[in-house]
Amino acid sequence: MSSSYDVIIVGGGPAGLTAGLYASRARLNTLLLEKAMVGGQIVNAELVENYPGFPQGIAGFELGQLMHQQATKLGLQTVVAEVVGVELKPEHRAVKTDDGGYIAKAVIIAGGSEYRRLGVPGEEALTGRGVSYCATCDAPLFKEQVVVVVGGGDAALSEALFLAKFASKVMVVHRRHQLRASQILQERAFAEARIGFLWNRVVDEIEGKGRVAGVKLRQVETGELSSLEAAGVFVAIGLRPNTRYLEGILPLDEGGHILANDLMETEIAGIFAAGDIRHHSARQVVAAAGDGAAAALSAERFIRELG
Amino acid sequence: MSSSYDVIIVGGGPAGLTAGLYASRARLNTLLLEKAMVGGQIVNAELVENYPGFPQGIAGFELGQLMHQQATKLGLQTVVAEVVGVELKPEHRAVKTDDGGYIAKAVIIAGGSEYRRLGVPGEEALTGRGVSYCATCDAPLFKEQVVVVVGGGDAALSEALFLAKFASKVMVVHRRHQLRASQILQERAFAEARIGFLWNRVVDEIEGKGRVAGVKLRQVETGELSSLEAAGVFVAIGLRPNTRYLEGILPLDEGGHILANDLMETEIAGIFAAGDIRHHSARQVVAAAGDGAAAALSAERFIRELG
Repeated sequence: MSSSYDVIIVGGGPAGLTAGLYASRARLNTLLLEKAMVGGQIVNAELVENYPGFPQGIAGFELGQLMHQQATKLGLQTVVAEVVGVELKPEHRAVKTDDGGYIAKAVIIAGGSEYRRLGVPGEEALTGRGVSYCATCDAPLFKEQVVVVVGGGDAALSEALFLAKFASKVMVVHRRHQLRASQILQERAFAEARIGFLWNRVVDEIEGKGRVAGVKLRQVETGELSSLEAAGVFVAIGLRPNTRYLEGILPLDEGGHILANDLMETEIAGIFAAGDIRHHSARQVVAAAGDGAAAALSAERFIRELG
Repeated sequence: MSSSYDVIIVGGGPAGLTAGLYASRARLNTLLLEKAMVGGQIVNAELVENYPGFPQGIAGFELGQLMHQQATKLGLQTVVAEVVGVELKPEHRAVKTDDGGYIAKAVIIAGGSEYRRLGVPGEEALTGRGVSYCATCDAPLFKEQVVVVVGGGDAALSEALFLAKFASKVMVVHRRHQLRASQILQERAFAEARIGFLWNRVVDEIEGKGRVAGVKLRQVETGELSSLEAAGVFVAIGLRPNTRYLEGILPLDEGGHILANDLMETEIAGIFAAGDIRHHSARQVVAAAGDGAAAALSAERFIRELG
């Protein structure tokens, strides 16, 4: 017999924690399932400068703890388990985890996104051995060394700028001839002497025995092959939403994000989405938190109308 | 000659302040226009318990000040003036105020909504001291106490049902002999033992010294006067978005809220909407702030693409 709740929230980042705060405060019996550590992606952020209310900034880890403390104080229960499936039954929704099942009247999916991988030879074997997805975490390991950043968006340039504080040279490899990143980041990156750009190139392979030694590059227009020595490869090509277990159950966009309306309702009654996992999410802490509040209010209304 | 900006933000509540934070941090020359005091509706909230990151709660006034300080530190300029019109020109947008005009590449409308007020003695003085316009915000402050809800629509019954989870008794005062609310909400409310109804009555006065003590009621058909002790009065007679000056310029819903997509874009290029003024807003501080972040990111993208 599965434990039964009013609301189950999948994911303990800012969206899930805020949904938990709102659902618990509405006196709904609420369970949050998180596979690793509450706080989500922000736990790796040294300083969150753009969450309103903290003029001096706040460490991501600390902000996650504060949000969790606030929701817990209002009654939110948290269990560490990875969700592997959701089933729709006529009278409730069943959530399966790697450590047992739960049932709920409403489910809020706030599972965030994971870093997208290049999918090239050497990447998996050398992850943690020079291949990284988080400059904030690993940049200090590459002092006075050459590193490669792969990507052309805000994330890639943010990583490059951070790495430039440590590395001797940061080469940004981008598949196009111009960046997608915001103007301010482009200006900053172009002005930083330690940052260089390799345009119209993709990484074909990450080389090294036991540790990254370099990358093989391909010019996408000419097919020209080249190689570059580097001690580190930072992959910043985007995020993959954690929705594989939802395929065939919920409507997803082509990137795998959940389609939901502006009340955070999916097409399936009783299932709501919030945060980075949602199509057109702004991918900002405060926007994810706002989604979480809206999703919890919609879930509360849904449960009230069930009677 | 009007002063010229990249972004003008109309309204200094959480949505406008967060938009200001994001736009300024993106190095956009940004002006915020606020007609009264930064902070918006939250300045009246004694304690905001549901803004994530503050487990002990925070006074609404203080939260508004912190948000303003953070945005100002990043370069946001603020002018106190009431916006009376927006004009669309081919090359920019012009914002007219009661104290001069401004032009901008992008405008973010975050002017909020005002709760319709009863307009009776005691209401203004006791707002935030027992008089509230938001059960989601304030219901937990009335545990095991008697509260009054004024109104007969969906909002009033939603407020009453939410309050019934906390209060010992919820008396709904309605000027007619039947409700406008949807059938399902009526059924729920009639089935809830803690909810009672006082028909054909209006509130003539809210009584109390420094804190709500009760209401004076008048029977609209007989003129009979009565009084009722209560610790809280929740006024739920509708919202009025601050959009009168936008009629004929922007598409509005029938209640006067701005129609915008999930990127906060309106149908008019370069005009964005954020917060309570937006159709289907969750009407919560954190959701408004999230809207503000999303609107500023969209405005930044719009300006970048203008070149």
